[in-house]
Amino acid sequence: MLCLAQLSRAPPPRPRAPDHPSLERPPRPRLPTRPPPAGPLGQGIANAVGLATAEKHLAARFNKPGHTVVDHYTYAIMGDGCNMEGISSEAASLAGHWGLGKLIAFYDDNHISIDGNTEISFTEDVGARYESMGWQVIHVKDGNSDVNAIRKAIADAKACTDKPTLIKVTTLIGYGSPNKADTHDVHGAPLGADETDATRKNLGWEHGPFEVPSNVRDAFKNAATQGADSEKEWNATWEKYAKEFPAEAKELNSILKGELPADWEKSLPSFTPEDKGLATRLHSQTMLNALAPVIPGFVGGSADLAPSNMTLMKMFGDFQKDTPAERNIRFGVREHAMGAIANGIALYAPGFVPYCATFFIFSDYMRNPMRMAALSEAGTLFVMTHDSIGLGEDGPTHQPVEHLASFRAMPNMLMWRPCDGNETAGAYAVAVANRKRPSTLALSRQGLPNQAGSSIEKAKKGAYTVYGAEGDCDAIIIGTGSEVPMAIDAAKALEADGKKVRVVSMPCWEIFEEQSDDYKKALLPKGTPTVSVEAGSSFGWAKYSHAHVGIDTFGASAPADQLYKEFGITVDNVVAAVKSLM
Amino acid sequence: MLCLAQLSRAPPPRPRAPDHPSLERPPRPRLPTRPPPAGPLGQGIANAVGLATAEKHLAARFNKPGHTVVDHYTYAIMGDGCNMEGISSEAASLAGHWGLGKLIAFYDDNHISIDGNTEISFTEDVGARYESMGWQVIHVKDGNSDVNAIRKAIADAKACTDKPTLIKVTTLIGYGSPNKADTHDVHGAPLGADETDATRKNLGWEHGPFEVPSNVRDAFKNAATQGADSEKEWNATWEKYAKEFPAEAKELNSILKGELPADWEKSLPSFTPEDKGLATRLHSQTMLNALAPVIPGFVGGSADLAPSNMTLMKMFGDFQKDTPAERNIRFGVREHAMGAIANGIALYAPGFVPYCATFFIFSDYMRNPMRMAALSEAGTLFVMTHDSIGLGEDGPTHQPVEHLASFRAMPNMLMWRPCDGNETAGAYAVAVANRKRPSTLALSRQGLPNQAGSSIEKAKKGAYTVYGAEGDCDAIIIGTGSEVPMAIDAAKALEADGKKVRVVSMPCWEIFEEQSDDYKKALLPKGTPTVSVEAGSSFGWAKYSHAHVGIDTFGASAPADQLYKEFGITVDNVVAAVKSLM
Repeated sequence: MLCLAQLSRAPPPRPRAPDHPSLERPPRPRLPTRPPPAGPLGQGIANAVGLATAEKHLAARFNKPGHTVVDHYTYAIMGDGCNMEGISSEAASLAGHWGLGKLIAFYDDNHISIDGNTEISFTEDVGARYESMGWQVIHVKDGNSDVNAIRKAIADAKACTDKPTLIKVTTLIGYGSPNKADTHDVHGAPLGADETDATRKNLGWEHGPFEVPSNVRDAFKNAATQGADSEKEWNATWEKYAKEFPAEAKELNSILKGELPADWEKSLPSFTPEDKGLATRLHSQTMLNALAPVIPGFVGGSADLAPSNMTLMKMFGDFQKDTPAERNIRFGVREHAMGAIANGIALYAPGFVPYCATFFIFSDYMRNPMRMAALSEAGTLFVMTHDSIGLGEDGPTHQPVEHLASFRAMPNMLMWRPCDGNETAGAYAVAVANRKRPSTLALSRQGLPNQAGSSIEKAKKGAYTVYGAEGDCDAIIIGTGSEVPMAIDAAKALEADGKKVRVVSMPCWEIFEEQSDDYKKALLPKGTPTVSVEAGSSFGWAKYSHAHVGIDTFGASAPADQLYKEFGITVDNVVAAVKSLM
Repeated sequence: MLCLAQLSRAPPPRPRAPDHPSLERPPRPRLPTRPPPAGPLGQGIANAVGLATAEKHLAARFNKPGHTVVDHYTYAIMGDGCNMEGISSEAASLAGHWGLGKLIAFYDDNHISIDGNTEISFTEDVGARYESMGWQVIHVKDGNSDVNAIRKAIADAKACTDKPTLIKVTTLIGYGSPNKADTHDVHGAPLGADETDATRKNLGWEHGPFEVPSNVRDAFKNAATQGADSEKEWNATWEKYAKEFPAEAKELNSILKGELPADWEKSLPSFTPEDKGLATRLHSQTMLNALAPVIPGFVGGSADLAPSNMTLMKMFGDFQKDTPAERNIRFGVREHAMGAIANGIALYAPGFVPYCATFFIFSDYMRNPMRMAALSEAGTLFVMTHDSIGLGEDGPTHQPVEHLASFRAMPNMLMWRPCDGNETAGAYAVAVANRKRPSTLALSRQGLPNQAGSSIEKAKKGAYTVYGAEGDCDAIIIGTGSEVPMAIDAAKALEADGKKVRVVSMPCWEIFEEQSDDYKKALLPKGTPTVSVEAGSSFGWAKYSHAHVGIDTFGASAPADQLYKEFGITVDNVVAAVKSLM
């Protein structure tokens, strides 16, 4: 059960010599430091759908008649396990819907998984399922030795340009091993010396271990020559293209090289308290629509919640089968595949900045691709609205409680919870700049005032004084997101009692941890009574605060105001918590 | 997009009168305090597969010729969104594989989701997909008014006894509303007063709001009478059954009532340091095989990792289409559906104790059903092996880091990490006893010694002194799971330096938090320098310790010993951390 995705013919070769110094050539799509690893079954085929989506989009957007600069197939290899996982169904359904004709997936149909023969749990007709989702399905009956049948299947797959193709290749696992073929003994363990010898004999293989036969070496050499010829040919195509379409060449180059346009960050607006207070999901929409026109590789969408997540880029249409040059992606209710497809787009080229969106609670459906983004250094943006009990009547099935903590605990993930327009802009500024770290943005459904003490630059420190005393003080109140106004109100009540209080807004723990020790110690000195307030679990807050006002149970269905009151997330309780420490 | 599952005819009615005092009748399957709520799309159909699985299992196990005491259909209603989610494909594939002939799912094919017409993201042939997975598919073309077609479809569904049935019912959303029918405007918002009036007129509906027409009232009354008759009939059947098969009746009664057999806990073995040190996944296998014969409702399995998770009950065969009385469930590589199916079984009757297993890392694929178990008070056991970088060469895609923290943050979830045989037994004792709280058991791949200081009773406190000083001491080292031996070795090194050190084993934070304040303060007094060691994220540990030895980055692929050394999870570092606090 192997699961990986690869580009077959990377569109643009790496720049080589200074022989055309005036002509800047785009680099080959970056290989991530940690490549998308095999392992979590089904991620690979969904990554491959992302790669094929990226290719179809770039080809439609940049190729010109007589100038085909983006043109390659995406191959993936799947096992039985990949096909049992729901994510592969989600991804395949989208691939069929989008008509990804250049996606070719091999299904190694060997009938063996870890528990034994797949008959014990997997008896569906996989081919018919793919056909129902708009794929061409080809069956290679003997994948062990009939190489020509595989060759023909690939040719037939390429001939079908409006559908992805599944090539089901029936094989024997451990083919050639006289005693272990067709058993799960060869799934995860080596054959052992004796059985290896027996297999060599059985197959008539007369070469030693790690000895590459000369005909194999020659075949690889030929492939290298063919590759060099292809590269030469492509370079000539690119030169002509760049001369004839300099603007397009520049834009494609920036996507493939990952060089964001100068001043892209200046497109982000800033806010003052006089600006209307809005939900941060609305500010997020503003940021998406500010960034989309200036960043060529900005693409993304929602899992059927675009009008709630506020994620449509208004200047673009929908990426669809017949309109693939557009940039709004409609993922349907498929969070798991959405995350992995977005990762595939991110890893296709470093100038792609893909975002994907759902309610924060449904991060539970896509947690593995979010982790895989962090692990494989894909700078995907996860736009997560409806970030607390503040979403109200949808009730506890929709109300995140432990989710902020769970992503703060995840390595290499930036977990943002902005409190207003400036912090939302700051979060996007850092998220877009971090092309090797994914960001999760927890955004409010409810409206929030713009703070006098916030700014984009301050937000980029992860935590800062948003209100009150900068230096020595009697108490510190840390708030995040929708609870920053409550922290400020509590501080004002304590000030009326003669106390000196600092309110720290802390939109991103991870970025704060990266500031200088001096900055961190000055902002949150040890020993000063500190209370945190956040409409989420107290879990983890003991690192920064001596008491926490939040919610450690599931929520309930009621208007937001009532829920905050019932669960005790109130100004009075913050004040009481501070007083209890003094 | 509505998603729920319900029992159509609950098998055993609630005991009513003392007229048969000698005959104990089982109660109707418990309605959970919080019923499995709608919301997370696709959970409902997978819960329904769990309910239908439970029915098929009980019917095969307890019905006798002429005595049909378990016999009902399970109905589910799905929307477009449910069918886009991968979990529904996973669950449907299993339902087809198991031949759940009494599962009937309605698919409300209204072509509208939140983003608009499903044409924008969902164009597959859903019926053909279900057929490929072994379902009967029936299409009701006019679900708005053709009630007889729905009646006939149900009859045809019942007539097909070896396959589940999908009844695709094509409807208009907002049917009858002259201006809003067939738009997503009616998906999540009320019609409003004017459009409600227009709809009433359009449909010729002359009754007032909340006025139940007499013919509707009569129909409901008739249904109540029919229900009473069915109950009477069933009661008579049950009486005969209980007389003729008293042993079976007692066992079925215990499953349906949730009364665990007396002394079930005594079946759990205890261990001394002389017993061979084993991986806790192997101890878990021992516990499963000890509990299975004494708890009639003990059922479960793994997502294609049974030989790694060690989850087979050796005295039983596989629950399969033709052997449904057996109790080992083969879920295939379908973690998401597995969790929701297990929840469905747990919620079917309180005496079911379902477990489901995979590698701990793949909890990422089933996080929502784990949360739903906690929210809907389903006492499912989540058996999660390979719980840290200690799993070795499978590498960072398979190595949990943040997972312990993420489940400790989840309300109503018991997160266990036992260190040896006694603690594994204690974890199972508490998990089985908690029928309204799910438990997650993080278990090691690597072997661990049995501790002299551990016991089942101590483990049941969540945290306790496993080694060293009970009262005042110079330092406390808290360890969990595979790091308890390291904590003890560090304590011994410090003792050699003349320090008085207590080692606390803390297999379950949540259970520890429920102990008396006296116990908690005595075990972990504030002010005593405290270091925690766990091969996982430091996130959250600031609550109990002043320094943590663990791992806050992703792991790597190497033998376990080497990884521990490379990532600095060593006795020396624990000793150094303690000294830094003294």
